[in-house]
Amino acid sequence: MVGIGPGARNEISQRALDALKNSETIVGYKLYVDLVKDIIGTKQVIATAMRKEIERVEIAIQEALSGKTVSIISSGDPGVYGMAGLVLEVIAQKNIELSLEIISGIPAANAAAAVLGAPLMHDYAVISLSDLLTPWETIEKRVKCAAEADYVIVLYNPKSAQREWQIEKTAHIIRQHKPPTTPVGIVKDASRENESVIITTLDKMISCPIDMTTVIIIGNSTTFRYRNYMITKRGYHV
Amino acid sequence: MVGIGPGARNEISQRALDALKNSETIVGYKLYVDLVKDIIGTKQVIATAMRKEIERVEIAIQEALSGKTVSIISSGDPGVYGMAGLVLEVIAQKNIELSLEIISGIPAANAAAAVLGAPLMHDYAVISLSDLLTPWETIEKRVKCAAEADYVIVLYNPKSAQREWQIEKTAHIIRQHKPPTTPVGIVKDASRENESVIITTLDKMISCPIDMTTVIIIGNSTTFRYRNYMITKRGYHV
Repeated sequence: MVGIGPGARNEISQRALDALKNSETIVGYKLYVDLVKDIIGTKQVIATAMRKEIERVEIAIQEALSGKTVSIISSGDPGVYGMAGLVLEVIAQKNIELSLEIISGIPAANAAAAVLGAPLMHDYAVISLSDLLTPWETIEKRVKCAAEADYVIVLYNPKSAQREWQIEKTAHIIRQHKPPTTPVGIVKDASRENESVIITTLDKMISCPIDMTTVIIIGNSTTFRYRNYMITKRGYHV
Repeated sequence: MVGIGPGARNEISQRALDALKNSETIVGYKLYVDLVKDIIGTKQVIATAMRKEIERVEIAIQEALSGKTVSIISSGDPGVYGMAGLVLEVIAQKNIELSLEIISGIPAANAAAAVLGAPLMHDYAVISLSDLLTPWETIEKRVKCAAEADYVIVLYNPKSAQREWQIEKTAHIIRQHKPPTTPVGIVKDASRENESVIITTLDKMISCPIDMTTVIIIGNSTTFRYRNYMITKRGYHV
């Protein structure tokens, strides 16, 4: 289970590169496989469509059981809404014996933070707004609690063509606990070719372009904007 | 501001390695500088003691203002309780003009998760238990809210020689919201030479060895243990 980080070639770890080079079969979502195409070369590649996660895992496990060394790719970190958990869930459920390795990558949240400045310098909550696999009530409660306790809040999967109201509802809940002037960073494709970075405020975030691969970071009560940086204070007397 | 990740050489990104190689001066806490000693070679190294963070930042800025290319090192990610925020705070406060680059590393939380299996597969809250820079009431409220909303909880800086009761109080609060059998992972020095990994349960965590550089991950209501893996369910029908 290999994390390729945010996408830029020079942000992948050597450990991940070596795993890809030493694998006979590479399994992944097409977009992520394409990001490392030149490393993979002529290896066997099994690229599946989006939302075919279980299929992808079952193919990878079949290949591995046939004796091959297999890499299953996640963007960011495979342990953060990635493939690591699903592989382990299937292995646990079927009680399969396989030699496994989980190779971290820089998570999307941290890659987004780095292009914004330093918004995650204090306690933060990471929440996916996708209610395909999680009841909305659970998500809503987590958003409310994180806002109440003055966490910096990171939102994954904020919006898609089929999910439009969730981000509006989320912004509404957060506004009941954080001031409208709270800095908000909106990052798309951090460290990839089409990187886009917006720093705005809580009351204006909803009118910014947001889609499925956008990461949104909402500051805590100490977060401030300075030039093009979003900075959360650590508590030092500077 | 360069993140060197959890510590293993092959988990550092090429971007971080290049930054270190292209710097004239390296500034950092001695332990972290030592982790990359062979890359640094004969460059000027300014290693300071622990808790001298502001001094470190001021030295780095002075060096940079004198025209040098300077790397200031953080273990893990410089944007997570690391040096990135402090550098930006000082620069904002003094309104200093400098060309800056923030280079992410794999955060300690994610490195710990990878050696445990996949505990961060669903929404998670990252909390530092150090009350040196943060009022205890703020920390306590965040712990309570995270436990109430069924987050996976990551604890940084859980305990030191001077701070012993905080982790006990934290475990007590969490036990009021999560069952005693909740899986807990305790990781020290993930991917370094002395790596130690324990999987236990919420009611027993306090009796395990815990210190300042330990990362603790407490599961949510779906987290289970399978062999030596701690796995949080993503919500798929496996």
